[in-house]
Amino acid sequence: MHLSRRALDIQPFHVMELLRRARELEAEGRDIIHMEVGEPDFPTPQPIIDAATRFLAGGDVHYTGAMGLPQLREAISRFYRERFSAEVPAHRIAITPGASGALMLALAATTDPGDEWLLPDPSYPCNRQLIRAFEGIAKPLPVDPDTRFQPTSDHVRAAWSPRTRGLMVATPSNPTGTLLSQSELTALRSEVIQRKGALIVDEIYQGLTYGVESSTALSHMDDVFVVNSFSKYFGMTGWRLGWLVAPESHVRVIEKLAQHFFIAASTPAQHAALAAFEPRTLDMLEARRAEFAERRATLLPGLRKLGFEVATEPQGAFYIYADVSKLCDDSETLARRFIEEAGVATTPGLDFGEHHPRRFLRIAYTTSQRRLIEAVERLASVLG
Amino acid sequence: MHLSRRALDIQPFHVMELLRRARELEAEGRDIIHMEVGEPDFPTPQPIIDAATRFLAGGDVHYTGAMGLPQLREAISRFYRERFSAEVPAHRIAITPGASGALMLALAATTDPGDEWLLPDPSYPCNRQLIRAFEGIAKPLPVDPDTRFQPTSDHVRAAWSPRTRGLMVATPSNPTGTLLSQSELTALRSEVIQRKGALIVDEIYQGLTYGVESSTALSHMDDVFVVNSFSKYFGMTGWRLGWLVAPESHVRVIEKLAQHFFIAASTPAQHAALAAFEPRTLDMLEARRAEFAERRATLLPGLRKLGFEVATEPQGAFYIYADVSKLCDDSETLARRFIEEAGVATTPGLDFGEHHPRRFLRIAYTTSQRRLIEAVERLASVLG
Repeated sequence: MHLSRRALDIQPFHVMELLRRARELEAEGRDIIHMEVGEPDFPTPQPIIDAATRFLAGGDVHYTGAMGLPQLREAISRFYRERFSAEVPAHRIAITPGASGALMLALAATTDPGDEWLLPDPSYPCNRQLIRAFEGIAKPLPVDPDTRFQPTSDHVRAAWSPRTRGLMVATPSNPTGTLLSQSELTALRSEVIQRKGALIVDEIYQGLTYGVESSTALSHMDDVFVVNSFSKYFGMTGWRLGWLVAPESHVRVIEKLAQHFFIAASTPAQHAALAAFEPRTLDMLEARRAEFAERRATLLPGLRKLGFEVATEPQGAFYIYADVSKLCDDSETLARRFIEEAGVATTPGLDFGEHHPRRFLRIAYTTSQRRLIEAVERLASVLG
Repeated sequence: MHLSRRALDIQPFHVMELLRRARELEAEGRDIIHMEVGEPDFPTPQPIIDAATRFLAGGDVHYTGAMGLPQLREAISRFYRERFSAEVPAHRIAITPGASGALMLALAATTDPGDEWLLPDPSYPCNRQLIRAFEGIAKPLPVDPDTRFQPTSDHVRAAWSPRTRGLMVATPSNPTGTLLSQSELTALRSEVIQRKGALIVDEIYQGLTYGVESSTALSHMDDVFVVNSFSKYFGMTGWRLGWLVAPESHVRVIEKLAQHFFIAASTPAQHAALAAFEPRTLDMLEARRAEFAERRATLLPGLRKLGFEVATEPQGAFYIYADVSKLCDDSETLARRFIEEAGVATTPGLDFGEHHPRRFLRIAYTTSQRRLIEAVERLASVLG
């Protein structure tokens, strides 16, 4: 039976191989420290759990509208106003099954077959694959520590072609944890808009910043797509809930697409998320952010002492993207050694693009301080 | 900013217009009887709610693997064995965000741009739109009461072209509620497979049959895609949980696609669904099926007395697809009259295809006996 070219082209997550190996080792009784995982180790905040439980007690778990629960869209709109002084009307907000759903909608609404999307290399692997899924072509912009792994106006000008549909950026970025400043983002937007392109800003790690206030593109622009998620800052990964802010011009088609792609996002998750913006929840989340900041302050110098190079300090998300070329000429080999010899799981650069992937490892600080310290000790013994 | 051709081509659900009008009327204080809705009016069964609540008490709502919770995949495999004597190994079962997710995976894995899919007209509107989303072409097979609105080998032979990728069928069907027998399905499969095509069997309404045992294609074939859902029979619409059974040849690409499209289905929903196959849940569901059967036994003669023609009796789902050409020459006009003059919401044929859509109305018996009786009385007064 036929496999589509899309299905053949789309790449799996390489880290899955490693995760499989980690689980095998765990099944053999080995203790594995997980620093490959892109989800917070914290449980979902209790007020969110409680809101879900209260809702479920009623038993009426029916579909919401395709764009989501009106109260939740209003709550997000209010959150933008109160936290970021950004005016984002609720009707431009689509609640989606995770940020994955939001990315699918934005790409499906804008991409014709053969259209090119510019996006930084390294970047989140799904982005390239979802572009491929809708018959677009991902055109990587190789980025380096000198621009904090973020694309610049120069990158965009140099790479733009008549087939270019738009630019995707992420701030904070996965895998690098680096941010775009408002002025950098504004400059990128203007390059894109003057070419009648689309800009997708991934703010999935919004809220998780250290030593700098978190921000949103929407404070300064409303003609872009913004992708966000309840997964990371709000601690709701497994619920699969995110949102898309669409430009006014695309709201109606986004609604149509959402009807057919998803019918709607999960209703219990939507009711649970209503509690995400309550003051006591936000207090818990800020305490977690402080904990992430401490972990980062432990891990970064620890790794550097071992010879991991981190030329540009990450200011967001919960990742360190380290150059390991002084330690090994292939980060995948190194990752294998780390898991086999030290029981420490990390993600090799291979998953994030083709620009020097074998020089880099992504290390997530989604585990406790105690375990991070132990991980650094274990890596030290491997590197001897 | 550019709108993709896909976004422009994809049609909204027409019924949404009507639903909006129904809500306006309700806001004005009018009592509306909802017979347009494609979801059971029953709440989620208590054992399923309880399983979710127990799971949430732990707070650890993390991602599952892309193919879903192993225990749930095993439970579905067991269900196939125990209920249908079908051997479906768990590794071929992907848990998805609703049947929508399952359909997306099956289509993305098989469809190249320009590929044609045959599907009955009338049929579930999303199918056509999802084919379009992946740059395929939906090629309708006009079906009539003489084949119980189901396609036959003759239809497939006549419509198959070098560009045809496969055939989608549904049993029970939405909007017609009619079934395919195992011998009809086997004949369709053989037409498709001998042309090296793919067959997608939508079993979303499996379990909801009246006067006939429910069945699965998987008892007789394993080289097809089967789409199923926890929404309808299991009463879990708002949870957004379904599954795809893939042929062995496609399991690996389905997993890759699922990683990128969804990461995974909702974790609380997956834990909740573990209780769906418990004997006491199944007892409740069978009682609901009996209630649906009684409603059907009330509504069908009631509508016929008013001049609705139902040439082929629906044996499944919870829909009656009635020919209203004796009452009005446009079912959309009639639906508007029904809602405005009688406060009864129904779905005009327009949503389901282009084959005589203005002759048909879909009427769902997703409301109580008492309300169905009242609805028939109200329609009688409109039709005078």
